Amino acid sequence: MFQPLSQRFLHYTRDHHLALANCRLLVAVSGGLDSVVLCHLLQELHVPFAIAHCHFGLRAAESDRDAAFVADLAKELSVPFFIRHFDTNEFAAANRCSIQEAARTLRYNWFQELLADEANWHLHLSAVATAHHLDDNIETVVMNFFKGTGISGLRGILPIQGKLVRPLLFARRSELAEYAASHKLSWVEDSSNAETKYTRNFFRHEVLPLVQQKFPQAMENMAANIQRFSEVEILYQQALHQHLKGLCVYKGSEVHVPVLKLAKTVPLETVAFELLKAYGFSAQQTGSVLHLLDSESGRYVQSATHQVVRHRRWLVIAPLQLEESSLVLIEQDLEKVNFGTRVLLLEQVAVPSNLKTAADTALVDFHKLKFPLVLRKWKAGDYFYPLGLGKKKKVSRLLIDLKLSKTEKEQVYVLESGNKIVWVVGHRLDDRFKIGPATRQAYRVQLNG
Amino acid sequence: MFQPLSQRFLHYTRDHHLALANCRLLVAVSGGLDSVVLCHLLQELHVPFAIAHCHFGLRAAESDRDAAFVADLAKELSVPFFIRHFDTNEFAAANRCSIQEAARTLRYNWFQELLADEANWHLHLSAVATAHHLDDNIETVVMNFFKGTGISGLRGILPIQGKLVRPLLFARRSELAEYAASHKLSWVEDSSNAETKYTRNFFRHEVLPLVQQKFPQAMENMAANIQRFSEVEILYQQALHQHLKGLCVYKGSEVHVPVLKLAKTVPLETVAFELLKAYGFSAQQTGSVLHLLDSESGRYVQSATHQVVRHRRWLVIAPLQLEESSLVLIEQDLEKVNFGTRVLLLEQVAVPSNLKTAADTALVDFHKLKFPLVLRKWKAGDYFYPLGLGKKKKVSRLLIDLKLSKTEKEQVYVLESGNKIVWVVGHRLDDRFKIGPATRQAYRVQLNG
Repeated sequence: MFQPLSQRFLHYTRDHHLALANCRLLVAVSGGLDSVVLCHLLQELHVPFAIAHCHFGLRAAESDRDAAFVADLAKELSVPFFIRHFDTNEFAAANRCSIQEAARTLRYNWFQELLADEANWHLHLSAVATAHHLDDNIETVVMNFFKGTGISGLRGILPIQGKLVRPLLFARRSELAEYAASHKLSWVEDSSNAETKYTRNFFRHEVLPLVQQKFPQAMENMAANIQRFSEVEILYQQALHQHLKGLCVYKGSEVHVPVLKLAKTVPLETVAFELLKAYGFSAQQTGSVLHLLDSESGRYVQSATHQVVRHRRWLVIAPLQLEESSLVLIEQDLEKVNFGTRVLLLEQVAVPSNLKTAADTALVDFHKLKFPLVLRKWKAGDYFYPLGLGKKKKVSRLLIDLKLSKTEKEQVYVLESGNKIVWVVGHRLDDRFKIGPATRQAYRVQLNG
Repeated sequence: MFQPLSQRFLHYTRDHHLALANCRLLVAVSGGLDSVVLCHLLQELHVPFAIAHCHFGLRAAESDRDAAFVADLAKELSVPFFIRHFDTNEFAAANRCSIQEAARTLRYNWFQELLADEANWHLHLSAVATAHHLDDNIETVVMNFFKGTGISGLRGILPIQGKLVRPLLFARRSELAEYAASHKLSWVEDSSNAETKYTRNFFRHEVLPLVQQKFPQAMENMAANIQRFSEVEILYQQALHQHLKGLCVYKGSEVHVPVLKLAKTVPLETVAFELLKAYGFSAQQTGSVLHLLDSESGRYVQSATHQVVRHRRWLVIAPLQLEESSLVLIEQDLEKVNFGTRVLLLEQVAVPSNLKTAADTALVDFHKLKFPLVLRKWKAGDYFYPLGLGKKKKVSRLLIDLKLSKTEKEQVYVLESGNKIVWVVGHRLDDRFKIGPATRQAYRVQLNG
């Protein structure tokens, strides 16, 4: 049964709740076929909208021509019109990104501004609409496929993503062209040959037609794939959620993952990858993190924002900002550690003749230490061998003996070397790390603040 | 770090447990490059094997040449050799299948025979090994992708599947060619141009090289995709398993699915498809079955082996073989139903002048019936309006009044029309379906046995 494009458009927008009642869509209009058709469809169906046009100034006179065209379109359709000029080249240079990334960032930042701007509140702008259609989506998915991707790359663009909607995602490019022809619409052609556009055109005009020689239904098959893989992704996320729920113990800003349980997880690579992805780790780093499953305490892998530390039978994922973390790794060459409002100063020193120190300084045998050291809050069950006591003692007992308040207790840290406490920071040294006759190199830790 | 092919082969076979200790692989050898390399690798690594060659007789002299070549190879390598001649054309004609399907069926049936044959027990044949390699797998996955597929089509061939193993699945075609060249191996070229082979060559020689112009790493990316999608599929199956566990109530040979719960399932299409697939329903039929969620009782969809019936608030999936099912649908034109050891004979008849019948016969008003009727065992809670009683009565009460034994009670069936009981089979008619003055067409149901 044949349905005109506008009817299918209406159903798609309704089914996916793309246009809200009493609100206006902000349509990103380049002036090309797709965005012009989108505007006319909205007009035909009495869906309120406004037009936004980005003047990136990358194509000289052509950019001006497009801007004028879109301004005229907005006038013709009697809808609010926004335009902004960007110095895209400058932004790209300043932010060391490609022209394309720059354009994307500038564009979406501006759209967000328009939506949020108090001056536009009377327009009730609910979301930004772009004119991506089914062929765009298929091309994206096929390119993702050959570039290598996970499941999300195969379900492609979504009809709704936050404040971004794609009301034409159901329609083939040819349908839009037919609509434009039958409605005698005019539009502008974009002559730009940006790299991704070039790649996209290569797939559109060379790869996909070649494939269709052998599989004439390839485009329809891809469209069905996209539907199916959207659902596969939902199942994927459901199973993943179950795994992560069972694996992650959240402690403040840290996530603790039991090593034995993680090692038994199937499928290990993917679950580990997804677990770590949220903390800035790359797919390549997943392998390194999995090596921690067989490593000794103290080993770690670091992303731009987080570290995963093997700590006894746990992997501890902690933010790199020391204030937020209750576990700090101290490498051999580190000279200073901030924790809370305090600072530890660290230094290798010659063995001093006088070993007496104030409570805020620890002097230990450097060669007895195993780096990285771990600085962390004390916890129930911690014990050590207080200097000179000749037997072990619970840290909790020590703190009681020291008559610390509850708040003071909460601020007590221990410095560890290979699971052994070296120093109850600011309070008592461990006997096993003391400087003795055989010590040739000392290590001094000093607490400030 | 460079590893010779034989080392990687060894690791791959070990990691995937492809070759069992003290057992022999039965290698399917066409005489082509891939299978010849597989034999030599096994020989080099002292993995015991035997060779099986299928002579399909499809390429006249070339088939004979290949058979002779493989026989010589087996002799050269001193391994047991099996060969069989097939009349592939005849088999295809007799079974109305393509030559390719015929060859595949003949081939794998024969391999199974060889593995099971008592005469070969002394060889300890553990599995059939084929020489599929990574390029084969990538090509398969890319073809699946463009033909339209679910997630399993994207993870491609598995290294082990029942008694079938693919020890070369890790290796690129070029690596096999290098191995053959450096070991001065000879092999035979297959000139056949079967349709799928043609399509495969088209992708190998045209589509994939074109894609690699733009994405030079496309083959490596595909190989990584295959790894990833294998794990995606595991997560997919895990989530699916959870859904089905929550949805399916197994009753004998039937599966009962609560309509309300199924309707709320996300993602609905895929879960429904996977649920139904096991019972012979196609992807196209999933939509029809989902329509049953909004339909009245008695509507159904049928596969070659099963039917899904909307039965009140349940979808009941039942085998078509009546004996196995506790719920039988009776269409208007059905003349006979077997259930248990008994038979119902069904017939539209003229309204008889004498309405008196034996207990084993029901005469009802044909136009009051809603087809398909449902024949099922009575259950607790069933009630009806016994003929002449003037009020409703529980079936359980009737059976007590009839003084039936427990075993007899278990064999009582009811015939239903649109959720209403027409007849407690062999016992009592319902008043609502009786023949009256306005009846123009009668329907007779007779119980035999």
